[in-house]
Amino acid sequence: MIPQWVIEKKRDGGVLDDAEIRAFIDGFTTGRIPDYQMSALAMAIYFKGMDERETATLTDAMMRSGDVIDFSAWPRPTADKHSTGGIGDKLSLMIAPLAAAAGLAVPMISGRGLGITGGTLDKLESIPGFNTRLTPEQFKAQIYGDVRCAIIGQTARIAPADKILYALRDVTGTVPSIPLITASIMSKKLAEGAQSLVMDIKCGRGAFMKTLEDAEALALSILRTGQALGRNMAAFITDMDQPLGRTAGNGVEIEETLEVLNGKGPADVRELTLVFAAKMAELSGISCNPEKLLDDGTALAYFYRMVKAQGGNLDALPKAKFSRILTAPRSGYVSEVDADAIGRGVLELGAGRKAVADTLDFAAGIRNLVQAGEFVKAGDPLMEILADSEAKTAPAMTWFEQAVTLVVEPPAPRKLILKTMN
Amino acid sequence: MIPQWVIEKKRDGGVLDDAEIRAFIDGFTTGRIPDYQMSALAMAIYFKGMDERETATLTDAMMRSGDVIDFSAWPRPTADKHSTGGIGDKLSLMIAPLAAAAGLAVPMISGRGLGITGGTLDKLESIPGFNTRLTPEQFKAQIYGDVRCAIIGQTARIAPADKILYALRDVTGTVPSIPLITASIMSKKLAEGAQSLVMDIKCGRGAFMKTLEDAEALALSILRTGQALGRNMAAFITDMDQPLGRTAGNGVEIEETLEVLNGKGPADVRELTLVFAAKMAELSGISCNPEKLLDDGTALAYFYRMVKAQGGNLDALPKAKFSRILTAPRSGYVSEVDADAIGRGVLELGAGRKAVADTLDFAAGIRNLVQAGEFVKAGDPLMEILADSEAKTAPAMTWFEQAVTLVVEPPAPRKLILKTMN
Repeated sequence: MIPQWVIEKKRDGGVLDDAEIRAFIDGFTTGRIPDYQMSALAMAIYFKGMDERETATLTDAMMRSGDVIDFSAWPRPTADKHSTGGIGDKLSLMIAPLAAAAGLAVPMISGRGLGITGGTLDKLESIPGFNTRLTPEQFKAQIYGDVRCAIIGQTARIAPADKILYALRDVTGTVPSIPLITASIMSKKLAEGAQSLVMDIKCGRGAFMKTLEDAEALALSILRTGQALGRNMAAFITDMDQPLGRTAGNGVEIEETLEVLNGKGPADVRELTLVFAAKMAELSGISCNPEKLLDDGTALAYFYRMVKAQGGNLDALPKAKFSRILTAPRSGYVSEVDADAIGRGVLELGAGRKAVADTLDFAAGIRNLVQAGEFVKAGDPLMEILADSEAKTAPAMTWFEQAVTLVVEPPAPRKLILKTMN
Repeated sequence: MIPQWVIEKKRDGGVLDDAEIRAFIDGFTTGRIPDYQMSALAMAIYFKGMDERETATLTDAMMRSGDVIDFSAWPRPTADKHSTGGIGDKLSLMIAPLAAAAGLAVPMISGRGLGITGGTLDKLESIPGFNTRLTPEQFKAQIYGDVRCAIIGQTARIAPADKILYALRDVTGTVPSIPLITASIMSKKLAEGAQSLVMDIKCGRGAFMKTLEDAEALALSILRTGQALGRNMAAFITDMDQPLGRTAGNGVEIEETLEVLNGKGPADVRELTLVFAAKMAELSGISCNPEKLLDDGTALAYFYRMVKAQGGNLDALPKAKFSRILTAPRSGYVSEVDADAIGRGVLELGAGRKAVADTLDFAAGIRNLVQAGEFVKAGDPLMEILADSEAKTAPAMTWFEQAVTLVVEPPAPRKLILKTMN
């Protein structure tokens, strides 16, 4: 395999064969193919795309660059849910224990937040003591035991090709390519070994995919890749023009998670939690009543078990030193809450990362956020802002003040699930 | 300047501003911008192109990455001719002394052959003792003196950005891009300081540009770039479906050069020599009679002076140990001689380089090659093949045997100059 011939073939719109893709990824991962050839190939893929087989092979090659966890010897069906990331998206925190309560085994490898998008790992780490760095052996033991679910971070042994390729794409203008995004997400997800996978493709202002067309293209690519590699797949495209739930941050999202696991909490978070857990059970051939498992405390019990097994102490959630209320400047119906503005505000509070090395203020964030369709009177609270000091809220307020739109007429109800695909 | 933003801008079809282009080339040349960002930008340029201003700025930035020779203090007009390379293309060897004879100063920096295309430097180095490695000071002194012309190789101090970018493009599938080819050729040519430049864009089977459309696009890009950077420019697109002259190799092309400089030699070589030298004089505002200068020995005298000044000994041209004649299998008119097949055959003889580090057999090559339009009888010679041994000719014969097409009817005359542009 001559690397430049593979680059030229893709550049000229050719379809790469499996051996070419595998040799290129293997050469890149082991350092025999230099970065400058990988970045040229990535740019050629950006312009010329990859078909379903090429994308599946790329994903498989990247997955096999590291450890692939194997649950095939375990009789219980394994399933996972993955989101492309949004504002206030704490769904994994409820879905993992709910699916475990339904009888599934849930091996979940999650990411950290970067930019306006929060990360499930950061939210969990706001629980003092919570350990997201289990070894593959500890991870399997927790899932095989009575906890049945575990949420950990990506290790250096999971899809190392993705780690170095993502870093390269980030500085060479080759991030927004459907096959490359697919291979990046799926090489990691498939390595964790779940047999069934429900994808939540976020779409809108607060998401990476801004349009339904782009979201559909990514969803389809992910579905076909997972199916080509032998997994049970389903995808939902869900709205991220507006944030999910009434909280955004880290510790505050754990609080909201506990509300939902107690049968309460915001309707949007509850609805998606139930839908995704039901789909995971369906893909796994399990019949269950997720609503009952959520309302009778069974899912909550699994959440407690998981937090305890991973060393977390829910009695010691972080408390912000300063809080302020943003009030409505006039009366009206909330027609929308801008997920992008909320995300940028929360980032300014210190609850997110502007750069990979930033440390987080786990107590910072917002709660009691109004939602679309609600009526507020002038002076009513729109949200409560939590931060380390009043000064820390200053750069965020500009974003929060423009986040909520008030109108005279009641708006049309929000459509939460834009499309279901499989 | 954030390199990935520049890459993304070009990837999305944007027009780069001068500061972005200069900062990128400067960063790349000094090592601050890594190869993987340069190759990604090169691939984005491959797909999205560059406009005339961008191409001129890129050329200027690459030219200024090294020494720029300055003849502005010298009263005599400076002019050069450059070819994109072909089979049997020895024109520079006659044009430099002819233009010098016409009163021009000719600073010529030439290249070596790679693949089927021969290089002017290699042909000169087949003259024992000929030194193509003059310092810039020696180069200027020779041109300022009574030799008036000099042909040397590119030094490390001329356009170093091109040297490293070309090596990178070669292994990243980014060679065939008009703006990148333009900047590569012109950054070197303009650095040598000639005020007027005649470009010979070769077109056909034996050239880099296979179609008239591609050749025109390159010619236009080169013309506009040179003009934007203040030079007098003209371009000819000339046929390279068939080789130039009756020789191809190194030493044999010096022999043919001497024939033409003696007022004899093949008509095609003579015609282009006269046309190009006349155009150099015209661009420089000099009136002359190149035909007379060629026929009365004036140009030959300048050639002898140049060879002597650069240490060459024309009495010791290399002689091949083995020669064989390829004869016509049947009678007929030569309808065409395939430049690509001749080039590949000559390469197999050892007169060209398959890899940059290959050494050459200066005596190898072909001579007395028939030309299109000539009539041969069965058994008449088609060409004489020169090599170090009979064994060395074996792999070349397959190419030579298929190079000459014989037909019953006399073919239409060959069109040598396909287009003149300025």
